[in-house]
Amino acid sequence: MNLILLFNEDFISDSRVRLEGRRLDHVTKVLKSKLGDRLSVGKIDGRLGVGEIIRIDKAVELEVTFNQKPPEPLGIKLVLALPRPHLFKRSLFFAAMLGIKEIYIINFSRVEKSLWNSKTLEPAVMQEQLILGLEQAKDTILPSITVHRQFKPFLEDTLPNVIKGTTPIVAHPSGPESSPLLKPTPMTLVIGPEGGIIPHELEQLEKCGFKSMSFGPRILRVDAALAFITSKLQ
Amino acid sequence: MNLILLFNEDFISDSRVRLEGRRLDHVTKVLKSKLGDRLSVGKIDGRLGVGEIIRIDKAVELEVTFNQKPPEPLGIKLVLALPRPHLFKRSLFFAAMLGIKEIYIINFSRVEKSLWNSKTLEPAVMQEQLILGLEQAKDTILPSITVHRQFKPFLEDTLPNVIKGTTPIVAHPSGPESSPLLKPTPMTLVIGPEGGIIPHELEQLEKCGFKSMSFGPRILRVDAALAFITSKLQ
Repeated sequence: MNLILLFNEDFISDSRVRLEGRRLDHVTKVLKSKLGDRLSVGKIDGRLGVGEIIRIDKAVELEVTFNQKPPEPLGIKLVLALPRPHLFKRSLFFAAMLGIKEIYIINFSRVEKSLWNSKTLEPAVMQEQLILGLEQAKDTILPSITVHRQFKPFLEDTLPNVIKGTTPIVAHPSGPESSPLLKPTPMTLVIGPEGGIIPHELEQLEKCGFKSMSFGPRILRVDAALAFITSKLQ
Repeated sequence: MNLILLFNEDFISDSRVRLEGRRLDHVTKVLKSKLGDRLSVGKIDGRLGVGEIIRIDKAVELEVTFNQKPPEPLGIKLVLALPRPHLFKRSLFFAAMLGIKEIYIINFSRVEKSLWNSKTLEPAVMQEQLILGLEQAKDTILPSITVHRQFKPFLEDTLPNVIKGTTPIVAHPSGPESSPLLKPTPMTLVIGPEGGIIPHELEQLEKCGFKSMSFGPRILRVDAALAFITSKLQ
């Protein structure tokens, strides 16, 4: 946690917040802060600033001022095949940390059906990972995330609007190797499932306007792929 | 596991291997393979190939042929501040997956002292993560890894030989933003601890020949930083 992220319900006045639970633990046990210390804070969907500790016991109270914009969002929308639960949580953390602001979780035929029963798809579980990612990166802008269990309706009804005004790219070994000079931005990036995107699905994405692009000879796990590909594309 | 990695002790003849334990489980429970199926295999520090299942019961036996080189190594040596145990394990997995072949684990003043007592520093634990990374990436060349608990002796006695013939870079927010056109390769990359590299340590690295380079405004966790930075540099 490089930033203490503040929500509306934390404010007890315009410039004062009271924190308990996880954030209190972080202040007392990890940072080992004391009265008068100044900590990095950020208001969700708002600005970054500083919070001075004015009370610390069963809760910590901060006097906060906000004076700085959060970092620029990454100009990449993410369309991600649902990964296995622990990798799904980590992928959301990574996406938020990397500055992705629009996330679409979708189905492919090689996504195991049982994954759709996972508790990690509960909104609160997904949001927790996004918040942890923002706290790591010192960002405040919460990504939007939607879950689409049906591939075809998503492709027909949702995806055309998502890619409007963006360069649509699907990470796939059949495509040409990505080039560091190619910097179309904004982009929409599709990352398929572990087992791969089957030819019929790739065709449908290509009909939608997507171009395949390869990112090297190694098979990266989805968490690493997210960091590796967004770095290459931005 | 996209590749079944084979070791000398697996061979029961020149072209036949017998596998039990984790790899048997993978073949029977994850891949659900049967007699006659052909699987991706690789010989540690050797070539890639195919293994045909010729027996499958309490062990699996494969008739193997090798016909393909592993992917090119990444031209980046990694000098990494010891992370917290679960991130250390994941960093080793990431480094091997990304194709790094020389890893130096070192100390900085902001590496918590207690981390040096971690069981993750046992050679077998480190090697397990490297092997998992190779299996993910379909690579066979095991990275070398050495652990250096003293910063100064490492800088004076070891580092000058490590960086010979490479461009030495330290990831640090004080440096100029990395440019996608800058492609000096091979390189030696230093990634510091979560708490940052203190000015005195940065000076010592600079005296050694290192240049600082920044990789964007976000604070990435070490696992993501590894993928993000190597993608940017290679």
